[in-house]
Amino acid sequence: MNYIDFDKTAVYGKLEEHAAAFGSFDFNALLDAARVEKCRTPMAAGLCFSWAAKALDDEALKLLQALATEQELIAKYKALLDGEVMNTGEKRKVLHQLSRGEQGKPVIENGKNIGEFYRKELDRLCAFASDVHGGKYKGSTGKPFSTVVQIGIGGSDLGPRAMYLALENWAVAEGKKKLDAKFISNVDPDDAAAVIAAVPLEQSLFILVSKSGTTQETLANELFVKGKLTKAGLDSSKHMIAVTSETSPLARNPAYLDSFYIDDYIGGRYSSSSAVGGCVLSLAFGPQVFREFLAGAAEADKLALEPDILKNAALLDALTGVWERNFLGFPYTAVLPYSQALSRFPAHLQQLDMESNGKRVNRNGEPVLYNTGPVVFGEPGTNGQHSFYQLLHQGTNITPLQFVGFTESQRRDDITVDGSDSQTKLKANLAAQIVAFAKGQRDENLNKNFSGRRPSSLIYGKRLGPAALGSLLAHFENKVMFQGFVWNINSFDQEGVQLGKILTKKVLAENSGDSALDAYSKILGI
Amino acid sequence: MNYIDFDKTAVYGKLEEHAAAFGSFDFNALLDAARVEKCRTPMAAGLCFSWAAKALDDEALKLLQALATEQELIAKYKALLDGEVMNTGEKRKVLHQLSRGEQGKPVIENGKNIGEFYRKELDRLCAFASDVHGGKYKGSTGKPFSTVVQIGIGGSDLGPRAMYLALENWAVAEGKKKLDAKFISNVDPDDAAAVIAAVPLEQSLFILVSKSGTTQETLANELFVKGKLTKAGLDSSKHMIAVTSETSPLARNPAYLDSFYIDDYIGGRYSSSSAVGGCVLSLAFGPQVFREFLAGAAEADKLALEPDILKNAALLDALTGVWERNFLGFPYTAVLPYSQALSRFPAHLQQLDMESNGKRVNRNGEPVLYNTGPVVFGEPGTNGQHSFYQLLHQGTNITPLQFVGFTESQRRDDITVDGSDSQTKLKANLAAQIVAFAKGQRDENLNKNFSGRRPSSLIYGKRLGPAALGSLLAHFENKVMFQGFVWNINSFDQEGVQLGKILTKKVLAENSGDSALDAYSKILGI
Repeated sequence: MNYIDFDKTAVYGKLEEHAAAFGSFDFNALLDAARVEKCRTPMAAGLCFSWAAKALDDEALKLLQALATEQELIAKYKALLDGEVMNTGEKRKVLHQLSRGEQGKPVIENGKNIGEFYRKELDRLCAFASDVHGGKYKGSTGKPFSTVVQIGIGGSDLGPRAMYLALENWAVAEGKKKLDAKFISNVDPDDAAAVIAAVPLEQSLFILVSKSGTTQETLANELFVKGKLTKAGLDSSKHMIAVTSETSPLARNPAYLDSFYIDDYIGGRYSSSSAVGGCVLSLAFGPQVFREFLAGAAEADKLALEPDILKNAALLDALTGVWERNFLGFPYTAVLPYSQALSRFPAHLQQLDMESNGKRVNRNGEPVLYNTGPVVFGEPGTNGQHSFYQLLHQGTNITPLQFVGFTESQRRDDITVDGSDSQTKLKANLAAQIVAFAKGQRDENLNKNFSGRRPSSLIYGKRLGPAALGSLLAHFENKVMFQGFVWNINSFDQEGVQLGKILTKKVLAENSGDSALDAYSKILGI
Repeated sequence: MNYIDFDKTAVYGKLEEHAAAFGSFDFNALLDAARVEKCRTPMAAGLCFSWAAKALDDEALKLLQALATEQELIAKYKALLDGEVMNTGEKRKVLHQLSRGEQGKPVIENGKNIGEFYRKELDRLCAFASDVHGGKYKGSTGKPFSTVVQIGIGGSDLGPRAMYLALENWAVAEGKKKLDAKFISNVDPDDAAAVIAAVPLEQSLFILVSKSGTTQETLANELFVKGKLTKAGLDSSKHMIAVTSETSPLARNPAYLDSFYIDDYIGGRYSSSSAVGGCVLSLAFGPQVFREFLAGAAEADKLALEPDILKNAALLDALTGVWERNFLGFPYTAVLPYSQALSRFPAHLQQLDMESNGKRVNRNGEPVLYNTGPVVFGEPGTNGQHSFYQLLHQGTNITPLQFVGFTESQRRDDITVDGSDSQTKLKANLAAQIVAFAKGQRDENLNKNFSGRRPSSLIYGKRLGPAALGSLLAHFENKVMFQGFVWNINSFDQEGVQLGKILTKKVLAENSGDSALDAYSKILGI
């Protein structure tokens, strides 16, 4: 395999030259029904990627296809699936796709089949969830569990929380909601205290999630929760399970009712489809819902193997992002789901994208001379329309947009006002925004003028359920992966989080060795 | 008063020249205890603005002071307070500061004293809240109200919701929580359906918030809620109040238990300190808590009159942001509160800042040739540390940072683990991050190298309560106002939201006149 920096590729200069064409890309003339009809790429689980409103002409597509070929994006993805060490900094395989299906060769290490290991853990956690639902496991006073509380931070929180919220209303409507779920993440003691005050402790099952078993925030929150359980006269070992690695201090520990395992080949931000997301989602909605979610993700992983960029939504989305970031010069991307269920999906994507590709060295640790990952932000529509869309429409910089929308609501509980139901209003707003951003509107009063030319894509589907959600999640994971390959960076480590941890320990040990740090500690009352 | 474009000021070129000095601004050498001690500006309600870790040397400060003087920032603020028409596009006064205190001359219009009008509405809503708490008003079946639900979107949602969450734990700890509050905003029917399913309808009081009385989302959600109330056999007119303008169809309408008024001089994103925030906060926590919040904001408004930038935190923060945006070239700003209570404060600031200053024409409608408002995003720490901080530390672009932190937790329910309680760990992380971002750390392994030079500021205080929250809110409102004055833009209109509304109506009327819009409507199943 050929790993070269992006600016050393033959196609880089051609893309640079062609970028000038964006100035003449005329959304008003080009964006018509035929283009909307044509510029669509099917995704897994019935979703579809619409890229008609992106500034992509035939020449740009040709060059991006050449880039995919030259940077061997599909071959690198296959190598990753087959278990090659793609996390070069930490010298680890990258196997989150394997947690939901086997797209490559079996990955064997020291005689251990990793895919089998993941499947076994999946079977175990599904069985455990069924046993909880069936009443085999109960709280220490004999009452059935009604609530599950995940204790974790970063990837152990954002993804699972976003997925839970994404499916909660669907599950209620489908009669599949088994348990309420809550989440404790922040080391701010007010976070845990507020959640604990709001749940029925006697009927709560806690999931402690830390791969290393050493996460400062999570261990502090575990002891906070255990203290509350003990104070309430409850046996904490009957109210807590662990999700961790087999080598962590949390593994096979009698302090927990059971433990479920992941390994170093599944990074935190990629762990929603492992036991990290699996326990809470299976307990909340039943194992079958989680398996449908995995099937949607696996189907997306499979589609991502397609070399033709027009048939591979994740690849096309990735390359379009590179086009916008490196050649059109846009430093950010907004994620705008027209679905209240996806209220925390942008926060998850913010982690996924910014932690993966916010890098300035290549996979060999050498500095790169081009921009990598953009800043990602977003809120659900139509809420955002009444907030930061002003800047998106009329600010001095252009932000590329990623819309998501569905034909049907999740709860199917709606009302008709002025001739349309709310779901139709939601979709009408979404369609209107895409066209407003792309085409703008001339007005002699420049304050009411919209210059348009704001590119956007749209992922749409019939209704947001488990398979569609898995498809959506894997789409973005694979998009981020492909972009990392283009930029020749390691999207799977996060050395940028280390320095803060080291300095925090020094502050807590009262030995910072830095007078400014001491002074900040003092003004904060440490 | 002299209104000139920023790039036409005498100081602009000097700032441009001096910006090269950022290259030699040596955080490692300069950021020490003495600088942390010195570079602090007191704020209202005991908060303090620490700007030691900003790339500001004496020359930059001198030039920014000259900019404040040349652009007459304080004089413009005074004119605004005195009732001059500062919302030039819509030809309106801008009087949100007047909703919490009178810093300027009395504002009289057609014989009406606007300050008195705001005070009267404040007194009325406080009396109403006390009457609800005292049991004078009850649900239509005679049960006392336990829950208040705000129906509103944009400024009628983000600010009040962020303020409610910011004070909820404090109120619980202080024994001041009177009612639970929930919020319905999105036109997505799943939003209202989920909230309605979670509240005790018989004991719920709804606040319908729409200044114009014509907001599409809010009116749809109102009818959704009324349908549920009627279906439950409840009299909706006994379960709903309105916050609106006196000229709206919602005013003095027997469909509501009572109505409270604002006017066109308080923009949505500036309305948290008016009846828009006042009703829900007074009902949730008691009128006295809301009055303390207003007092904190009023004190901040008064401090913002100070012409010396070193004594005016809002002004200094504003000018520093301009320095970073226009001269150091940073297109974004992150807001990072180390307080779970401020979990939605970044979303509110995102609206406040991006909707106010995301403009490309000056206050007279002429195009500006410099950048205006940045993209604003953020999540609470320490959560963000395990997410997007990777890019902030090691990405290819620099993001200026705005930290917020407090000495004490709100609930004062904490646990000591490894020699420190969680609140101390939270603060240690905060102090560590400021220094890590500023100073970085050299490592021969470039993947573990931190180049530092990421500027940040810190707002800190003893404990987050009503007055501190009012101070914090007004600080950012005034910061955004001062930046608008520097850029010579109108920070108080939002024409950028109009085009989407127009196209949405066309879609719903099945008369879009645009084949692409029709095609998008079709694929979304409209």
